Amino acid sequence: MAAAIALSERGRGRTAPNPNVGCVIVKHGRVVGRGWTQPGGRPHAEAVALEQAGASALGATAYVTLEPCAHHGARGPACADLLVAARPARVVAAITDPDPRTAGQGFARLRAAGIAVTEGILVEPARRAMAGFLTRQTLGRPHVTLKLATSLDGKIALPSGESRWITGPEARAHAHLERARADAILVGRGTHDADTPRLDVRLPGLEDRAPARLLLSRSFAAQASAEHPALITEMLLGGGGGGYLVLSAPDQITALPRTDHVLVEGGAGVASSFLAADLVDRLLLYRAPILIGEGRAAIGDIGLGQLSEAHGRWALTDTRTFGIDPLEIYERRR
Amino acid sequence: MAAAIALSERGRGRTAPNPNVGCVIVKHGRVVGRGWTQPGGRPHAEAVALEQAGASALGATAYVTLEPCAHHGARGPACADLLVAARPARVVAAITDPDPRTAGQGFARLRAAGIAVTEGILVEPARRAMAGFLTRQTLGRPHVTLKLATSLDGKIALPSGESRWITGPEARAHAHLERARADAILVGRGTHDADTPRLDVRLPGLEDRAPARLLLSRSFAAQASAEHPALITEMLLGGGGGGYLVLSAPDQITALPRTDHVLVEGGAGVASSFLAADLVDRLLLYRAPILIGEGRAAIGDIGLGQLSEAHGRWALTDTRTFGIDPLEIYERRR
Repeated sequence: MAAAIALSERGRGRTAPNPNVGCVIVKHGRVVGRGWTQPGGRPHAEAVALEQAGASALGATAYVTLEPCAHHGARGPACADLLVAARPARVVAAITDPDPRTAGQGFARLRAAGIAVTEGILVEPARRAMAGFLTRQTLGRPHVTLKLATSLDGKIALPSGESRWITGPEARAHAHLERARADAILVGRGTHDADTPRLDVRLPGLEDRAPARLLLSRSFAAQASAEHPALITEMLLGGGGGGYLVLSAPDQITALPRTDHVLVEGGAGVASSFLAADLVDRLLLYRAPILIGEGRAAIGDIGLGQLSEAHGRWALTDTRTFGIDPLEIYERRR
Repeated sequence: MAAAIALSERGRGRTAPNPNVGCVIVKHGRVVGRGWTQPGGRPHAEAVALEQAGASALGATAYVTLEPCAHHGARGPACADLLVAARPARVVAAITDPDPRTAGQGFARLRAAGIAVTEGILVEPARRAMAGFLTRQTLGRPHVTLKLATSLDGKIALPSGESRWITGPEARAHAHLERARADAILVGRGTHDADTPRLDVRLPGLEDRAPARLLLSRSFAAQASAEHPALITEMLLGGGGGGYLVLSAPDQITALPRTDHVLVEGGAGVASSFLAADLVDRLLLYRAPILIGEGRAAIGDIGLGQLSEAHGRWALTDTRTFGIDPLEIYERRR
């Protein structure tokens, strides 16, 4: 299952509105098929793995990170039906699909066909890998990761604005990997104008990942929507031909098509807006072992009335170190 | 040696100007004597351990965290002479005593008497345990620990000043233990007036530890010295009968008698003053998994001209977690 989850991560950020599923098929202790949801959402992970396994799927064990879908789509058959046809002896799954079109019916169809089903294996890691799809299903909006890169005292720049660099090259490379795992990246007007970030993925082999680029700017959105009266207005900004979708408020991410994982990159105003709206599910806190003192804070007003309101919201779920810079990952407790 | 270092910690904060040494004597695989420098600096660790070992010291191995002293004092004989008289077969030491009255002569005297000497065992942990004495010897001033307790975004209070509590009871208890390990605790005028901290050690069994209390206040020091023209003026402040020594500048800690370990507790002004003067050797960073946003920063202006100056100063040497609050310990790289 851990291998299936690792495979599912390969699709993350490119499968919305479909879940990024992973699948491993094992026969007599050997892997005979591997698959993950392909960019655009099809084929599904099970279809890829079953095609690879061919006749070997008969009597095998299929590990899937999400309950196989029970609904036929215009673009392919239901994975539950594909499995029933391939006749593995057993299907092991992490999570039940919350999509009402499946929601247990995938498992039921397998069991009805005489295939043994085990559920609930490695639920938490699978939930993290498919956080976008699951958040969309449960909260009706994309999963939001906020990235902060600060000094030990929570600063992101000197008073002059100098911010290159707080963290080292290893941490910055990992931040690029996180871009590759998002459907869309969001910055604020200040960050856009000061840094004109390319918001691309500058990692060998991942250069073709091009998450959508979002700009949160109330004034800009007002100006844009005067010309094009739409909730969300696409427009071109600056050089390099980079198109940005302009949002006027954090909750407009809800309406974005094919966007289940949003990475909020900064600056402090944008971070504060999303935190104040309680729209951050995951916090990537890159930290450099430096003290800055007087400087620009990573976040501003998030609407906290008293200290007790701050407690109990965040749980540390992972830590890593890049070069000398620790990364802490927190998740919003809900 | 690790056991000897652990014993040495028992004296930390109460032996200045003497080093807080630890000693363990082992004979045929059994511990026959243990000692640590006693409050006030005498008896020395070796004297305590040798007294406990008695005749068993003959042919034993003595582990000491610092080279045994070679100089007679008014209050007792040199430890090197005590060891030569007790005739252990071997002495294992962590660090050479930088005190010019010993500085290798302790080891030489042991070797001249036919006792085998091994040096340089567990140097770094021993150095940390006796940081006060060693800093006094090498830099001519006390060793300074700065304690900060912040949110993930580096804040120590809401805009209103509300700061109780950022960290939980376990982290706060550990901070009290750190008080017990200091000769003196220092706060600024703002912290004194806002919190009237007792600056005592509220831990079972350690209530008798009473580090000296220091107050850094330029204006207060000026007022006090007008009445008593001394560099450092002792005076009484507030209720509770607590006496504070008032300093007008961070570097006045150099002149404090019997003070080799200073714990700087806050607030932001005091922290910034010590950091700007490059007088912080060790940083205790207690962090709560909360975000505050707008609020009071842990440190203010520390005189940083550009970002490159911030890098390379601090090395993470230890991490622990108290309840849900991580503690990171950094040391100044010199």
